[in-house]
Amino acid sequence: MSASLKTSNRFETAEAKANVARAIEQLRPIFGDRLSVGSAVREQHGRGEAYAQGFPPDAVIWPINTAEVSRVAKVCNELRVPLIAFGAGTSLEGHVSALYGGICLDMSRMNQVLEVRADDADCVVQPGITREELNAYLRDTGFYFPIDPGANASIGGMISTRASGTNTIRYGTIAQNVMALEVVLANGEVIRCGNRARKSSAGYDLVRLFTGSEGTLGIITEATLRLHGQPEAVGSSVCAFPDLRGAVDTVIELIQSGAPVSRIEFLDEVQVRACNAYSKLSLPEQPTLFIEFMGTAATVTEQFERAVDVVKSHGATSLDWAFDEQRRAALWKARHSAYFAARALRPATDCIVADVCVPISQLANCVAETRAEIDAAGLLAPILGHVGDGNFHVLFLIDPSNEDERTRMERVYDSMIATAHRLGGTCTGEHGIGLGKRDKLIAEFGAPVVELMRKLKDAWDPNGILNPGKVFELN
Amino acid sequence: MSASLKTSNRFETAEAKANVARAIEQLRPIFGDRLSVGSAVREQHGRGEAYAQGFPPDAVIWPINTAEVSRVAKVCNELRVPLIAFGAGTSLEGHVSALYGGICLDMSRMNQVLEVRADDADCVVQPGITREELNAYLRDTGFYFPIDPGANASIGGMISTRASGTNTIRYGTIAQNVMALEVVLANGEVIRCGNRARKSSAGYDLVRLFTGSEGTLGIITEATLRLHGQPEAVGSSVCAFPDLRGAVDTVIELIQSGAPVSRIEFLDEVQVRACNAYSKLSLPEQPTLFIEFMGTAATVTEQFERAVDVVKSHGATSLDWAFDEQRRAALWKARHSAYFAARALRPATDCIVADVCVPISQLANCVAETRAEIDAAGLLAPILGHVGDGNFHVLFLIDPSNEDERTRMERVYDSMIATAHRLGGTCTGEHGIGLGKRDKLIAEFGAPVVELMRKLKDAWDPNGILNPGKVFELN
Repeated sequence: MSASLKTSNRFETAEAKANVARAIEQLRPIFGDRLSVGSAVREQHGRGEAYAQGFPPDAVIWPINTAEVSRVAKVCNELRVPLIAFGAGTSLEGHVSALYGGICLDMSRMNQVLEVRADDADCVVQPGITREELNAYLRDTGFYFPIDPGANASIGGMISTRASGTNTIRYGTIAQNVMALEVVLANGEVIRCGNRARKSSAGYDLVRLFTGSEGTLGIITEATLRLHGQPEAVGSSVCAFPDLRGAVDTVIELIQSGAPVSRIEFLDEVQVRACNAYSKLSLPEQPTLFIEFMGTAATVTEQFERAVDVVKSHGATSLDWAFDEQRRAALWKARHSAYFAARALRPATDCIVADVCVPISQLANCVAETRAEIDAAGLLAPILGHVGDGNFHVLFLIDPSNEDERTRMERVYDSMIATAHRLGGTCTGEHGIGLGKRDKLIAEFGAPVVELMRKLKDAWDPNGILNPGKVFELN
Repeated sequence: MSASLKTSNRFETAEAKANVARAIEQLRPIFGDRLSVGSAVREQHGRGEAYAQGFPPDAVIWPINTAEVSRVAKVCNELRVPLIAFGAGTSLEGHVSALYGGICLDMSRMNQVLEVRADDADCVVQPGITREELNAYLRDTGFYFPIDPGANASIGGMISTRASGTNTIRYGTIAQNVMALEVVLANGEVIRCGNRARKSSAGYDLVRLFTGSEGTLGIITEATLRLHGQPEAVGSSVCAFPDLRGAVDTVIELIQSGAPVSRIEFLDEVQVRACNAYSKLSLPEQPTLFIEFMGTAATVTEQFERAVDVVKSHGATSLDWAFDEQRRAALWKARHSAYFAARALRPATDCIVADVCVPISQLANCVAETRAEIDAAGLLAPILGHVGDGNFHVLFLIDPSNEDERTRMERVYDSMIATAHRLGGTCTGEHGIGLGKRDKLIAEFGAPVVELMRKLKDAWDPNGILNPGKVFELN
């Protein structure tokens, strides 16, 4: 598998290898013990959460400020050495794999909150802070940062993969919640884009361009984020449907009514079975929605009452709900432990988390087709999703030693993406392209559009040092 | 003034002029009477709403489909002829001025709604349709397209300038409401970016990059837009404050409380005076807020009651409100006629509409400083704004024959932008850079960032034919 992931050898000539050694020698006196070439450290930084096989960098550096990041970039650019930013290592598409070796910048020591501005509901953070660290910091301010991809990812990593998660339906993806960025470019130049105003028509939108660029255009060293008031009241409910169609039609009707839903999560019958077993619950093993409302107490109550009518009209066979925090947590336990519950269905297997997003009208079709293909291929794979956005995941539980099983999984995943494309959707709702979906990016937009993206990349990073091999194939 | 706007003469050599003539001769047989070189037509297409002096193109073409746009681009690219897209001609920063002549593409005959998909709340339109035409089309569907910049602009133009307006606080700018685009590139290639899924992490966000690129990266030929349900209930109120601070603090508190406000508009005392005179009203001539809530009847009532408390606590001296459509229209009459009321304050003058946007916490400072400078400079200029976003406009009423008055206006406007920058804001909240603010773009981000934008432009449009002289100075 590894051989086919590489499409260039320009970083693997003797000269290139000598240049990496030179870069490390130049940087070692600056960083001291914040530069490591130890193999355990390198291995740990060479893979995210999904790829069994890692590609270790030649060295890992822990910068503590922007000037240091700039210094490393200058050296790498001069010597044509790959440079890869590493956040929390939770990405799922091989984004942090050092496919061609080089220097890994571990941003975890740049994890400070630099400023919180209550009047404007924004804050300035370093990229290495994780979302849980940020929300812990904010707890007493009345604000929170709602973007929640599940994993305790770093903010820099979340921006780089255009992360979203369960709250998107209310707060948008991270792209709508980044106001400004400080970025170190390939040549070491430090730039700032965006500003603290809530909107601007000044020039090209570089903030949205860096967001989702997976470390291929620059290294994020500071971010200004939009914060949101902690909700006054939250109401949660869980409801089971005799079939998928009822669940999805409920989602469509709730969205169309403009109800202030903050989350609508879906678990299919296989996932509910996994959750029952794992968390000792007794939920009906049917397609199930987890719905959450936020607002004032009066709004939440009103909306819940309306939702009950909608849910019932689509044939829900059970409905439970809660307003206080403890009962809500109990009610949503199945959703919160879904990933671990799925893994426990078949211990000691790999879990490949597939990710597509389709127009909501096509969601039932896409999920149903996918479920049928999973079953026909004899695979074990629960389905769950942020269905308010049309985004769903398949958790493929695969025996790593079984080549045939992996082939069947890949065939189903390919088909699932082809279905998403046919239905007007995308090959990735929130995980990104990385190494794993470079061919799917071409399938989605066509080679000329990917070529256009690469022209941009080449204009800004002419030596191609920033996270080489990601998003695009190299020639 | 015109001479200083031009910074290149590469389009003005004898060869360049001959090439324009060649392009017109090549295109004339294709377009017949949909190509005009008549001087009235050219003059009309050489200016938007704000620039007294126009720069007419050499010819105007009315394409009726994407293939025709592509054909024109190919010819222009081959012959190095400037190509400028023209929507409704309502832009305020000289975006459509053919600074270096060339071909103007009037998109008004590409104004069809191609599809409305109720289940997904989206639609596909051609770029020449205006927002009023689109909303008239949608009237019976239960949906509407809420982005409202005031003028009856074309959708293509609104995307190109990253337009917003009064509804931004609830629905975002147009950038959050464009899902996919078809674009003709400088070389005539037709590409599609984005898709119909509600989110995607697939590659660079080209949709957001074309949005706000002012026709310098490509010509939009089709757009997929997000629609929104027509609100069930709307409540409007108007309240006057003894001073600016009370009005702005009200805005901050309403925003922070997460109230489902759909609009918060501000008129200063000069603007209210203008409205009273123009519309024969008797509003208190004080800083005034126009506030609107949307939602269910119960939510709107609840929110209005909360808003009353907030408004009163900040010293409002009057408060009026309405729920039914007719009374709301009467109540908001002053806001709706603000532009014409301002112009009527001093007939037969030019009206220069200044546009900045600052963090909300800085809004009172920025407006107060601006008002003081206007008064000190002896100018007549009402202030109004979409204050929920921190965005405000000064309507400078200037005698076009009075050079000194224009100089004083420019000094105040320069200072207003410098203040916005000092306070963390932007030189344009929603009007764009165009011709008028190219130096301000550099002031806002610094020359290296603008250079980065230009590298991107050069990579995609190496001959520089797309709307030359806009956003960037040419060298």
